[in-house]
Amino acid sequence: MKTKADKPPFILASSSPRRRELLTSLGLSFTILKPEIDENQRAGEPPLDYVRRLSIEKAIDVLMKIPQTGLVLAADTIVIHENIVLGKPVDANEARHMLHLLRGRKHQVCTAITLMSVVREPDLPTSLTRLTITDVTMRDYTDAEIDAYIATGDPFDKAGGYAIQHAEFSPVAHTEGSYSNVVGLPLETLGEMLGEIGWKI
Amino acid sequence: MKTKADKPPFILASSSPRRRELLTSLGLSFTILKPEIDENQRAGEPPLDYVRRLSIEKAIDVLMKIPQTGLVLAADTIVIHENIVLGKPVDANEARHMLHLLRGRKHQVCTAITLMSVVREPDLPTSLTRLTITDVTMRDYTDAEIDAYIATGDPFDKAGGYAIQHAEFSPVAHTEGSYSNVVGLPLETLGEMLGEIGWKI
Repeated sequence: MKTKADKPPFILASSSPRRRELLTSLGLSFTILKPEIDENQRAGEPPLDYVRRLSIEKAIDVLMKIPQTGLVLAADTIVIHENIVLGKPVDANEARHMLHLLRGRKHQVCTAITLMSVVREPDLPTSLTRLTITDVTMRDYTDAEIDAYIATGDPFDKAGGYAIQHAEFSPVAHTEGSYSNVVGLPLETLGEMLGEIGWKI
Repeated sequence: MKTKADKPPFILASSSPRRRELLTSLGLSFTILKPEIDENQRAGEPPLDYVRRLSIEKAIDVLMKIPQTGLVLAADTIVIHENIVLGKPVDANEARHMLHLLRGRKHQVCTAITLMSVVREPDLPTSLTRLTITDVTMRDYTDAEIDAYIATGDPFDKAGGYAIQHAEFSPVAHTEGSYSNVVGLPLETLGEMLGEIGWKI
């Protein structure tokens, strides 16, 4: 019988505290290794190709840094508004602009998850990437609410400049699809993928 | 009903004539786009990580060059002898050295196949990579046979310096696993992967 100590390590290739919390909620034990890649969108690259490529490149980068067994989970989340990717706002002006754009309207949040296995079981995928898309409709928040939210400093490490789970601002009126996807890691998709790649939680 | 014309294009990201022939034998119609990537093995990179990475990077490279629908198939094949990757020999001396190394002994041939879909169906993988490994045992060919084979020019575009299907040299005594894998594209694995990604042959 295999004991827990026999199990190869699970590595989260992300420095996002939200992803760490979501993964912990699955009862997984894991270590964290921050990927170091160029995260810029290429000229003409469609949003869904872009998010997929980043999650794959993060996984490859971290895989190069670990010992010879393990499973790497990498993810990238983008906010798409009318086919334009909204990244993390660099300053208050950009955050204000994004939150104006999104107000009262529908946009998409897409996370690409990549699993790459260093332990290679015959007949199982050695790399697997899936996209999860959630339609998010924002409520009609006021300019004053935007300014108060920006003053908390919360928008600056978040794609699209907001956190769905922020209790005071609470900017989202309605979602269609995975909620955890909007936080940063779609747990339903991840659960399916772990099964496909042969990882027992 | 969908007609054949509705079907998004299938793109083979490889310039290998063997892969083209094997794919044709499946009855697939496809176009060819040659990937342009750095094919060098990184320092300390294990052979199976290396072949996986190349197949993924080829797929990403070609995906950037195609219109907005389609399925990209990329593959990379390596020959592994005692955990060392044998690439394509650059000259007759290197080909001779490789064929001496392999003579009368067992080595592994590994192909990584990556499928990346530009058409994204919900609930299907958007990128999928599998490895196929075949154990190959060479026969005890003579030095004269090696020289005659090198003189045909056949070894120089082949990993490990040989083609299993070369009728005169016919260097392989025995295989365990997929034969088409040794030629360059394991058709059994490919068939399964096309099913997983939702592509009807």
